[in-house]
Amino acid sequence: MEFLAQVQSVTVIAIGVMIGLAAIGAAIGVALVGSRFLESAARQPEMMNALQPKLFVIAGLVDAIFIITVAVGLMFAFANPLLAVIK
Amino acid sequence: MEFLAQVQSVTVIAIGVMIGLAAIGAAIGVALVGSRFLESAARQPEMMNALQPKLFVIAGLVDAIFIITVAVGLMFAFANPLLAVIK
Amino acid sequence: MEFLAQVQSVTVIAIGVMIGLAAIGAAIGVALVGSRFLESAARQPEMMNALQPKLFVIAGLVDAIFIITVAVGLMFAFANPLLAVIK
Amino acid sequence: MEFLAQVQSVTVIAIGVMIGLAAIGAAIGVALVGSRFLESAARQPEMMNALQPKLFVIAGLVDAIFIITVAVGLMFAFANPLLAVIK
Amino acid sequence: MEFLAQVQSVTVIAIGVMIGLAAIGAAIGVALVGSRFLESAARQPEMMNALQPKLFVIAGLVDAIFIITVAVGLMFAFANPLLAVIK
Amino acid sequence: MEFLAQVQSVTVIAIGVMIGLAAIGAAIGVALVGSRFLESAARQPEMMNALQPKLFVIAGLVDAIFIITVAVGLMFAFANPLLAVIK
Amino acid sequence: MEFLAQVQSVTVIAIGVMIGLAAIGAAIGVALVGSRFLESAARQPEMMNALQPKLFVIAGLVDAIFIITVAVGLMFAFANPLLAVIK
Amino acid sequence: MEFLAQVQSVTVIAIGVMIGLAAIGAAIGVALVGSRFLESAARQPEMMNALQPKLFVIAGLVDAIFIITVAVGLMFAFANPLLAVIK
Amino acid sequence: MEFLAQVQSVTVIAIGVMIGLAAIGAAIGVALVGSRFLESAARQPEMMNALQPKLFVIAGLVDAIFIITVAVGLMFAFANPLLAVIK
Amino acid sequence: MEFLAQVQSVTVIAIGVMIGLAAIGAAIGVALVGSRFLESAARQPEMMNALQPKLFVIAGLVDAIFIITVAVGLMFAFANPLLAVIK
Amino acid sequence: MEFLAQVQSVTVIAIGVMIGLAAIGAAIGVALVGSRFLESAARQPEMMNALQPKLFVIAGLVDAIFIITVAVGLMFAFANPLLAVIK
Amino acid sequence: MEFLAQVQSVTVIAIGVMIGLAAIGAAIGVALVGSRFLESAARQPEMMNALQPKLFVIAGLVDAIFIITVAVGLMFAFANPLLAVIK
Amino acid sequence: MEFLAQVQSVTVIAIGVMIGLAAIGAAIGVALVGSRFLESAARQPEMMNALQPKLFVIAGLVDAIFIITVAVGLMFAFANPLLAVIK
Amino acid sequence: MEFLAQVQSVTVIAIGVMIGLAAIGAAIGVALVGSRFLESAARQPEMMNALQPKLFVIAGLVDAIFIITVAVGLMFAFANPLLAVIK
Repeated sequence: MEFLAQVQSVTVIAIGVMIGLAAIGAAIGVALVGSRFLESAARQPEMMNALQPKLFVIAGLVDAIFIITVAVGLMFAFANPLLAVIK
Repeated sequence: MEFLAQVQSVTVIAIGVMIGLAAIGAAIGVALVGSRFLESAARQPEMMNALQPKLFVIAGLVDAIFIITVAVGLMFAFANPLLAVIK
Repeated sequence: MEFLAQVQSVTVIAIGVMIGLAAIGAAIGVALVGSRFLESAARQPEMMNALQPKLFVIAGLVDAIFIITVAVGLMFAFANPLLAVIK
Repeated sequence: MEFLAQVQSVTVIAIGVMIGLAAIGAAIGVALVGSRFLESAARQPEMMNALQPKLFVIAGLVDAIFIITVAVGLMFAFANPLLAVIK
Repeated sequence: MEFLAQVQSVTVIAIGVMIGLAAIGAAIGVALVGSRFLESAARQPEMMNALQPKLFVIAGLVDAIFIITVAVGLMFAFANPLLAVIK
Repeated sequence: MEFLAQVQSVTVIAIGVMIGLAAIGAAIGVALVGSRFLESAARQPEMMNALQPKLFVIAGLVDAIFIITVAVGLMFAFANPLLAVIK
Repeated sequence: MEFLAQVQSVTVIAIGVMIGLAAIGAAIGVALVGSRFLESAARQPEMMNALQPKLFVIAGLVDAIFIITVAVGLMFAFANPLLAVIK
Repeated sequence: MEFLAQVQSVTVIAIGVMIGLAAIGAAIGVALVGSRFLESAARQPEMMNALQPKLFVIAGLVDAIFIITVAVGLMFAFANPLLAVIK
Repeated sequence: MEFLAQVQSVTVIAIGVMIGLAAIGAAIGVALVGSRFLESAARQPEMMNALQPKLFVIAGLVDAIFIITVAVGLMFAFANPLLAVIK
Repeated sequence: MEFLAQVQSVTVIAIGVMIGLAAIGAAIGVALVGSRFLESAARQPEMMNALQPKLFVIAGLVDAIFIITVAVGLMFAFANPLLAVIK
Repeated sequence: MEFLAQVQSVTVIAIGVMIGLAAIGAAIGVALVGSRFLESAARQPEMMNALQPKLFVIAGLVDAIFIITVAVGLMFAFANPLLAVIK
Repeated sequence: MEFLAQVQSVTVIAIGVMIGLAAIGAAIGVALVGSRFLESAARQPEMMNALQPKLFVIAGLVDAIFIITVAVGLMFAFANPLLAVIK
Repeated sequence: MEFLAQVQSVTVIAIGVMIGLAAIGAAIGVALVGSRFLESAARQPEMMNALQPKLFVIAGLVDAIFIITVAVGLMFAFANPLLAVIK
Repeated sequence: MEFLAQVQSVTVIAIGVMIGLAAIGAAIGVALVGSRFLESAARQPEMMNALQPKLFVIAGLVDAIFIITVAVGLMFAFANPLLAVIK
């Protein structure tokens, strides 16, 4: 029991660090891409419709990194694979 | 009981770090997008109506990262999955 | 009692970090948007009335992040959900 | 008594961090907005009267973040909600 | 007595952090506004008298943040509200 | 048992640091590449189709670094090779 | 006696941090204002006499922040209000 | 046994730091090279085919650094050479 | 005796931090002002004599902050007011 | 045995720091050189063949620093010279 | 004796921090002033003789800050005033 | 034996810090010089042959610093001079 | 003996910090001055001989700061004045 | 013996910090000077021979700082003057 609690405690800290860093990186990243999109769209209005799917693809790529990190974090939270060796 | 308290203590620190980093990232991110929108709208007034839905989509993408992080944090707070293995 | 005090202690630190980071992010964010608005309004005075509601929307989006963080913090302070498992 | 003192000690650290970060953010923020206002007013003197209420609105939005943080801090100081569960 | 000393000790650290961060923020902030004022006044000398009251208003807004922080700090120093629950 | 718990505890911290740093790096990296792509596409619309596969290749190179790091992290989580010498 | 020494020890650290941060902020601040004044005076020599009182006012505003911080620090040093509750 | 666990614990921390730093460096590095490639290709479309193998060579050089670091990390994880002297 | 030594120990650390931060701030500050003076004097040689007293006034203002900090530090060193309550 | 484990533990931390810092430095370094090469090659296509061997020489110089550091690290890992005096 | 050693130990750390920070500040400061002098002298050779005494005055002002800090440090080293109250 | 192990432990940490900092500095340094060389060679192709020996001299100067640091580190590792006084 | 060792230990750390900070500051400082000299000399070749003694004077001023710091450090190392009160 | 080991331990840490900081400073410094030399030589090829001895003088000044630091470090390593008072 004591060992389970110890491993769970450090796991939750690791999840917090992991998701926090990914969130700040992805938020700044999507904002950089989006502000560049608004600038381009305002400068060449006829390009707006052509650029929009590209924006979603790139924002999707950035968000994927965040979502993967969250998924790894939740997997650790719900079924911590590190506990397998500790019974 | 002792182990529950220990895991809950580090969980709340992890939630604080997670939400704090996501909040500062998202606040700066939305501000970057918004100030770029105001600049573009002032330079090409006829584009303002066309750009506005794009602004909301991008701000929504950025906010989604924050909201997901908050949701993960609250899930940890209300039903900490890490406690399942500790009884 | 001892465990309650321990969890409450780390909760209040987490609230402080969370609200502090969100406050500095939102303050800088609103200032960035606002200074860009003043610049745009001074350059194209005829746009000032059209831009003002946009300013409020964007500042609202940024402030929402801060308010949500404060709300989460206060919820933790008044009804700490992490104490549910500790009796 | 011991637990009350422990929670109060970390509360006051949290208040200090919270108000300190909000103060530095808001001071830089208001200064950014104000220096942009002075620049705009000097470049288009005829806009000065029209821009001034906008300045107050934006500075008010920034200050609101600081004031809310101070209010939360003082609420914690005078009536610490975290002590409710500790008797 | 022991608990009073403990709370007072962390209170004074919190006051130091709070006032120190606010002081560095406000000093840089007033300097940014003031240097922008000098630049504007030198470029359009006829605007100097019109801009000066604006300078005082903005510097007042920045200083207010510092003064409020100092006031909160001194209130904590002279009549620490956190000691109310510790007797 | 005690040694297993100790090694697992530091392993999970190492995984958190590893994935967190890779996530923030990859998110900023993909955003840099994507915003440069949007800018180029808006400036030379006839190049958009030719540039798009290049974008995917480069984003793939950046993402590969993140995915490799996640894979290493998960391998450590599910089958920690460092436990082989500890029985 | 022991409690007095403990509170005085942390008080002097708080004073050091407080005055140190205020000093570095004010020194950089006055230097920014002054170098902008020299630049403006060299570019429009006829403005030098008109700008000089403004320089003193702004430098005074910046220095006031430093002096207030020093005053608070010395007040804590000579008559520590936090000792009132400890006898 | 105790000494093996101690050495393995610090080994895994070292692997985490090593791979994490290399990942953030390589991700930013490949992104810098790739965004410069997109810019060059958009400016001189006739150069795109000639530049592409160069891009792969340079990205390969950057990735090699990351891969070497990962290889060193995995070698430490699977066959820790530092354990040879400890039996 | 023990309490005197404890308070003196933290006092000397506080003095070191205080004077160190003020010294780095003032050195950079005077250098900024001075390099701006050299630039202005080289661009408008006829202004050199008029600008020189201004330089001394501004450098004096910056140095005053350093000297005040040193004075406070030495006062603490020679006649530590914090020792008054400890006998 | 105890002393061997202690020295090996700090050795592996030192190797991690050493290789990690060298990897981030070399990755950024090669990327800087490579992006400058792509830019130059795109601007003067006739120079591409002449510049390419130079690129490899410079990237080789940068990589050499990383490889030397890795070699030193592995030498420490496989045959720790610091253990010679400890038997 | 014990108390003397304790105070001397922290004194020497304080001296190291104090002189180290002042040295890095003054070295960068003199370099900034000097490089600006070389630039001005190269641009207006006829001003070189007139600017040189100014350079020495400004470098003297910057060096004075370093020398005062060293003097304070040496005074603490040779005749530590903080030891007066400890016998 | 105990003292030998203690000194060897801190020696290896010192070697790691020393070589790590030198490696990151030298890698960035060689990259700066090399990218400037590529830029110059592309702009003035007729200078390429004349500049190349200079590049090697400068890169050699930078690498010398790294090699000296590695040499000092290895000397400490193989024949630690600090152990001479400990027998 | 014990007290002597304690004071000597912290003295050597203080010397390391002091000389290290001064070395990094002076190295960057001399490099800034020197690169500005090379730039000026290349732009106005006829000024090279006139500027060279100035370069040596300024580099001497920067180096003096480093040499004074080294001298203070060596004085502390060979004849530690702080040991005078400890016998 | 114990005291010798203690002083030697901190001495080697101090040497590591000292040489590491000096190495990173000198490597960046020589690179700055060298890249400026290459740029100047490419822009004015007729100046290359005249500038080269200057480059060596300046790089020598920068390297001197590194060499002096290494010399001080080695002197501490081979004949630690701080051990004189400890027998």
